[in-house]
Amino acid sequence: MKLYYATGTCALASHIALEEAGAEYSTARVNFATGEQRSAEYLAINPKGRVPSLITERGILTETPAMLAFIAQSFPKAKLAPLDDPFRFAEVQAFNSYLCSTVHVAHAHRMRGHRWADDPAALEAMKKKVPETVAACFELIENKMLQGPWVMGETYTICDPYLFTLAQWMEGDSVDPKRFPKVWDHRNRMSERAAVRKAVAEEKG
Amino acid sequence: MKLYYATGTCALASHIALEEAGAEYSTARVNFATGEQRSAEYLAINPKGRVPSLITERGILTETPAMLAFIAQSFPKAKLAPLDDPFRFAEVQAFNSYLCSTVHVAHAHRMRGHRWADDPAALEAMKKKVPETVAACFELIENKMLQGPWVMGETYTICDPYLFTLAQWMEGDSVDPKRFPKVWDHRNRMSERAAVRKAVAEEKG
Repeated sequence: MKLYYATGTCALASHIALEEAGAEYSTARVNFATGEQRSAEYLAINPKGRVPSLITERGILTETPAMLAFIAQSFPKAKLAPLDDPFRFAEVQAFNSYLCSTVHVAHAHRMRGHRWADDPAALEAMKKKVPETVAACFELIENKMLQGPWVMGETYTICDPYLFTLAQWMEGDSVDPKRFPKVWDHRNRMSERAAVRKAVAEEKG
Repeated sequence: MKLYYATGTCALASHIALEEAGAEYSTARVNFATGEQRSAEYLAINPKGRVPSLITERGILTETPAMLAFIAQSFPKAKLAPLDDPFRFAEVQAFNSYLCSTVHVAHAHRMRGHRWADDPAALEAMKKKVPETVAACFELIENKMLQGPWVMGETYTICDPYLFTLAQWMEGDSVDPKRFPKVWDHRNRMSERAAVRKAVAEEKG
């Protein structure tokens, strides 16, 4: 398998999950600074012009929640999701769906407001609200969703690398992570895991 | 099971899927006009203050992609997803993830811009771009994603009620659905299915 990623993006979640799964995979960095994600070569891989993309022997997958569930199902011995319990699996998926459709979207209004408006004043207005909207998301995660010590409780799942990835963006969004002690503790514990260190080091290298 | 929905929302996708699955379920309408989604009673069910929510004997589920996969896994005889093929299942999930994190979000900037900005001029700027952003999403679906006759090809899946639900919003977003012949045909065929007619009639009743 081959993972296309860009540094500082949500692709890190799948990168960590591949490591945790013990998968054999390679990575390819997409250079957002030069707009490589909109190159003809990359659009042939992912017509959305986004990361991550995962090349598998069956074809190409996109969208973090789908890729994370795929990694968990493809490497069942790694026990990255409650594969035999549809309700628990749905709880895992609901958490990841919230991250992709609400938390990531809230964050994206800081740097990617041009997706939803053209007026420069509107982009500034969006940017201004990001600290409030992102903090509201993490307040909900802290108080209602993160069971502890891992997202789903005693068992580490594909929710954990995804939360870790998005929780790293808080400072950039002017949100103090220490306001959310459980999320903060989770982020710190995650950053000590071998799989996380390896994926982060490779993406920064 | 009990589905909490509001008329005209993405909850319709899960409502249709429950019908297609032959599930035993009841429904409860949440009245957005009176702000019922922010009532203490409803926030106890879903602290996000959104629909859909699905009460199951195991607990409460939220987030459309997670609920759709749960319905498919809970009623395997209905064959609403390729449950024994992780790659095909991931393709289903990737499609649904795109709907929730990109298509629904693009649409939401017309009426729910207040989620991401406070300035009234910014809300107008967001609203103005919606026809362009929603059309771009459906162009991608038309040209790259909808395999036909169903989203995943020959087999009807949980992608179909979800696409149908969001495709109904095009006119409201000032996007002519006839620009996208495959999506238009899909929407028309979907609207003739017994499960769809029943769910739509109940939500409008």
